[in-house]
Amino acid sequence: MRLLILMMALTAAAPALADEGMWTFDNFPAASVQKIYGTAIDTAWLDHVRLSTIRLSNCTASFVSPDGLILTNHHCVESCLAELSSKDNALIDLGYLAPSRTAERRCSTQLADVLVGMEDVTAKVLRAVAGLDDQAANSARKKVLTELEQTCERKLLCQAVTLYEGGEYFIYKYKRYDDVRLVFAPEADIAAFGGDPDNFQFPRWSLDFSMLRAYEHGRPAKTPQFLTIDFDGPRDGELVFVSGHPGSTHRAETRAQLQFERDISLPGGLLRTAELRGRYLQFGSTSLANEQLVEAQLNSLENGLKVRRKLLDALHDDALMARKSEEERSLRAAARLPGEDPWNIIDAASTRERALYLPYSFIESGAGFNSILFRYARLLVRGADERAKPNTARLREYTDAALQRIEQQLVARVPVFSEVEVLTLSASLQRMREWLGPDYPLVRQLLVKDSPTTLATRLVAETKLDDPGVRRQLWEGGQAAVLASRDPMIELARAIDGDARLQRTQFEDEVEAPIAAASAKIAAARFKVYGTAVYPDANFTLRLNYGTVQGWIENGTPVAPFTHLDRAFERATGAAPFKIPDTWWRVKDQLDLQTPFCISTTSDIVGGNSGSPLIDAQGHIVGLMFDGNIHSISGDYWFDTAKNRAVALHPAIIREALDKVYRAKTLLAELMAR
Amino acid sequence: MRLLILMMALTAAAPALADEGMWTFDNFPAASVQKIYGTAIDTAWLDHVRLSTIRLSNCTASFVSPDGLILTNHHCVESCLAELSSKDNALIDLGYLAPSRTAERRCSTQLADVLVGMEDVTAKVLRAVAGLDDQAANSARKKVLTELEQTCERKLLCQAVTLYEGGEYFIYKYKRYDDVRLVFAPEADIAAFGGDPDNFQFPRWSLDFSMLRAYEHGRPAKTPQFLTIDFDGPRDGELVFVSGHPGSTHRAETRAQLQFERDISLPGGLLRTAELRGRYLQFGSTSLANEQLVEAQLNSLENGLKVRRKLLDALHDDALMARKSEEERSLRAAARLPGEDPWNIIDAASTRERALYLPYSFIESGAGFNSILFRYARLLVRGADERAKPNTARLREYTDAALQRIEQQLVARVPVFSEVEVLTLSASLQRMREWLGPDYPLVRQLLVKDSPTTLATRLVAETKLDDPGVRRQLWEGGQAAVLASRDPMIELARAIDGDARLQRTQFEDEVEAPIAAASAKIAAARFKVYGTAVYPDANFTLRLNYGTVQGWIENGTPVAPFTHLDRAFERATGAAPFKIPDTWWRVKDQLDLQTPFCISTTSDIVGGNSGSPLIDAQGHIVGLMFDGNIHSISGDYWFDTAKNRAVALHPAIIREALDKVYRAKTLLAELMAR
Repeated sequence: MRLLILMMALTAAAPALADEGMWTFDNFPAASVQKIYGTAIDTAWLDHVRLSTIRLSNCTASFVSPDGLILTNHHCVESCLAELSSKDNALIDLGYLAPSRTAERRCSTQLADVLVGMEDVTAKVLRAVAGLDDQAANSARKKVLTELEQTCERKLLCQAVTLYEGGEYFIYKYKRYDDVRLVFAPEADIAAFGGDPDNFQFPRWSLDFSMLRAYEHGRPAKTPQFLTIDFDGPRDGELVFVSGHPGSTHRAETRAQLQFERDISLPGGLLRTAELRGRYLQFGSTSLANEQLVEAQLNSLENGLKVRRKLLDALHDDALMARKSEEERSLRAAARLPGEDPWNIIDAASTRERALYLPYSFIESGAGFNSILFRYARLLVRGADERAKPNTARLREYTDAALQRIEQQLVARVPVFSEVEVLTLSASLQRMREWLGPDYPLVRQLLVKDSPTTLATRLVAETKLDDPGVRRQLWEGGQAAVLASRDPMIELARAIDGDARLQRTQFEDEVEAPIAAASAKIAAARFKVYGTAVYPDANFTLRLNYGTVQGWIENGTPVAPFTHLDRAFERATGAAPFKIPDTWWRVKDQLDLQTPFCISTTSDIVGGNSGSPLIDAQGHIVGLMFDGNIHSISGDYWFDTAKNRAVALHPAIIREALDKVYRAKTLLAELMAR
Repeated sequence: MRLLILMMALTAAAPALADEGMWTFDNFPAASVQKIYGTAIDTAWLDHVRLSTIRLSNCTASFVSPDGLILTNHHCVESCLAELSSKDNALIDLGYLAPSRTAERRCSTQLADVLVGMEDVTAKVLRAVAGLDDQAANSARKKVLTELEQTCERKLLCQAVTLYEGGEYFIYKYKRYDDVRLVFAPEADIAAFGGDPDNFQFPRWSLDFSMLRAYEHGRPAKTPQFLTIDFDGPRDGELVFVSGHPGSTHRAETRAQLQFERDISLPGGLLRTAELRGRYLQFGSTSLANEQLVEAQLNSLENGLKVRRKLLDALHDDALMARKSEEERSLRAAARLPGEDPWNIIDAASTRERALYLPYSFIESGAGFNSILFRYARLLVRGADERAKPNTARLREYTDAALQRIEQQLVARVPVFSEVEVLTLSASLQRMREWLGPDYPLVRQLLVKDSPTTLATRLVAETKLDDPGVRRQLWEGGQAAVLASRDPMIELARAIDGDARLQRTQFEDEVEAPIAAASAKIAAARFKVYGTAVYPDANFTLRLNYGTVQGWIENGTPVAPFTHLDRAFERATGAAPFKIPDTWWRVKDQLDLQTPFCISTTSDIVGGNSGSPLIDAQGHIVGLMFDGNIHSISGDYWFDTAKNRAVALHPAIIREALDKVYRAKTLLAELMAR
């Protein structure tokens, strides 16, 4: 059994087996589905599902009515809820139901993108880098991708996509909705029932859904491509699909890259995150107001902590590492690549990465400056410098295609809480001093007179970047305005920018460039040996997978694939995270306690798939993805058919809640119209 | 080079090479020292050094005058300083110099033990367990060790010692001083200059020393066995010895045991510790008073965090693991042991340990109840039950030999701060719920109505165990008093004791017992193949090692073995942990800035050696051990001759400080008298 599992661990390299795979829509294995399940999936089905699926900032969603109504997770709209809250009206805690369409409230940073076209540009990219050394190729590749993006049709947002670590390149074309409004969210106590203890667990009872609406020209968008909800949900064993945006996986990475994760980036990240969790919890313990100030960040951080913890567990399986070596050996032998061995090149680059990682992550990636206000300052300083260059010469995150999202972030009236800023900034400065050492030149320069706390306190107190108007002025004023600014946070971002860019260049030339070149060679080897029966690692682009409604065996005990409402009431303790809101207790007698609550499926999903529709063969929504079980976390490295399960909300509990608890008759009618 | 280092990694299994080894005084390799360095070490030298060396609670010290004067580290007396402090007079921060002997202040929990005798009882122990199965042998072994302890001479404290994982058993006999008083401590700012950032670093400038005095019958103890300080210190390259109590190493453990550390205990411990660090730091950030309340715990916690972090790094060296396998293979082949393979037995027991570890560590080892008050409650509840049994039937930590230390702890007037108690207890309850899961029966029972914070707050507010008088009554009242008590912390300890003891029994029977039996077989194999040229893993019993004053090469750059005072002033920033106290700035002009400050040596030491004398061939003190460099942390698993360095305080800076900064003329005179 163990061997079988491990053989499957490496299927991003070898052809995918049943139920595994995050397929691009242009390469969905409809023939396999037909063969295994006897179900035909045609182009019309694929197009309909794709055009009904939405990409949010870091989640997935779908249209569920012709009037732009959107279904996604509660945890995907937390920043919107925070933005629309006031001290006396915390929407995260209280929930929200727009009594009418005019009361639907705009989330200023929420965009909704629909993938309307995909163009294969692999040949153009390969032509642009042909004959260049690794460093030159790395720059030329970025340049040609920016060029391809900017030649795209007007009105569409075009983004270059790298698949198979450079085996394929595409331009993905999105229709973007930039006016998205909040329609409904339940209280956090029921949406996140079970909280961090239950996160990545199944059986489960979290009502993790919310609804938004896309607007165009100030009116609900017309969205003829939408998915109908089948409130009866799926049967045990039924074939189901998930359309969504898995964020990132590392299944095709080499052993050296996984060892870097295991030895360096995961342990370091875990330590910093765990410490910050302690800071947040202690801060929140002093008052209810403080608890609410850090609630959203804490949720997100605890989620990340659990993920990293289980990823480290997965990489501590020495047998997995041994199989990875064996798989590399056999692919190397089968492909007989000419020239220098790409695995050896990645080994050497990973060794170099170990030396460069700490200053790169603290100074350039910002681990040393964990502050919303600092990130504004960095965007303003870099944005000014980069926009002064031609589009193709800029850092990729400042090209024209990226500017709308940046501008929207900069001017959004997202509240900034100075105590929380001091907390995060001082904590990260302190860790930078610990990890780089007190005698590291930049550390010494910043902290020669001040302690991390003193410096953070002064910066946060004196900066004016918490004012969206000030940020807008600096953005619009460009280089001249930024250079003239005496704002201390801007001065800090300017003072470290030289060092930071140096770290980045060194990292790109000595780590990223050789790995990019070698990975493309390995991808070519896989195509040569396995053909198209492989799928690319996840990168937050649209994917489709298939699987079934199914439980699993945990320590010899079967776990059933459905949960029901009655058990949620039984588990309630009265205190968060196991508190059921009064709105539910009040109507408990009227509720059908046998209503299915959550579903477990074999769908191959990861973070970023949150809010994805679970779809049946008829193209109806039969669930709403919001999590995976604890074994799903190792899905970053391999897919464990025996135990990896996705967790969806059952549509019946959505209906029960909207109908009997929240009395959202109009909304429910819109969802049930056919 | 790499191979050479790794070969040496496993020298607790293979014979020790030059400078490596934590030798017991009965097996010191004087012949090797003679051969390598031409220096004769005789029995008189060994006896003198042994009888001048002191074991403190978790440190080492030595007598430095015939009147009971003791030299140790500042960080070894932190709990004494805390105990003697008041809100207005924080001795940790302010330091202390007794103006006369009558002003020397008693540390109520400080004991000082001197090893006056060692009796080999291996044959008796082996006789007691002969023919028994693993579980029965495990119990019989503990029983015979308790019996051997209690038949020891009166007036001496006798402790059973297991060496070579059961290859040898000794009764160690200590003369105990139970009246120990504070004589001198510098301010924490200079004692711990560099703080956590500089911890385990060299070059270094921390004045980490303090002085105590042993008393007998209310007067300074007569200690004819003491070490004279040679204030000129050692030369570069000079042969030096360290006598002390290394706390624990795992050099002889099997690969399976190291993998358990790497995969389970180190990552879990790191996460909990990092989070608690964040809690402490955030708590301390709210006021200076709060910062001082958690200062000592935070120092100790950060030290542990750095250690664990580097231990995990050491275990992520796959080549080390591969060598460990190879070493096991070759020892197995050379020893040709009869019966079941002991490495396989340990493999199986380690697998079982993975399953039992979480409930065992949270419930029995107390990771779920991190609270001084709870630990009092546990001592009282268990102490009452255990003392009702015959001595040999008790848990080993409650035998007669252990009672004095327990009683002293229970009645000590150590201040307990309720906010800190709530912090640590709520944090650990929360983590227990996370790791065991909210549906684990004991977790559910404790937290069915309360959140971890509510429960912790109530327990801490309502318990009376912060009163030493209450604790004394309960201790003296025994089982009847404990059973009648309505104190909520006592009730908690009683409520979980059944579960906790069950976890312990299961762990002892299924993990400890088979590992003990198998480890003894492996030890026998080592004796058979390597003779006595091996040293036992550290276990906080007295050891002696030899080495030289020596720097090392770090990333191609040589690190010199001495630092000097001038650089400390250059590194000062004005803010802790890089603040030099005003007492030093005031006399800076009078100081010799070229005074040597710290020394780096090749001595093979680990935690527990803190406060150990660094001794020259004449038996004089030429330094005071207080740390190791960053590479020394991997010393838990192997000794890296190339880079592992111990860090000592130079005696010249002790003289300079006592003479010019603290004007401690009388004390200095006592130290300089010959």
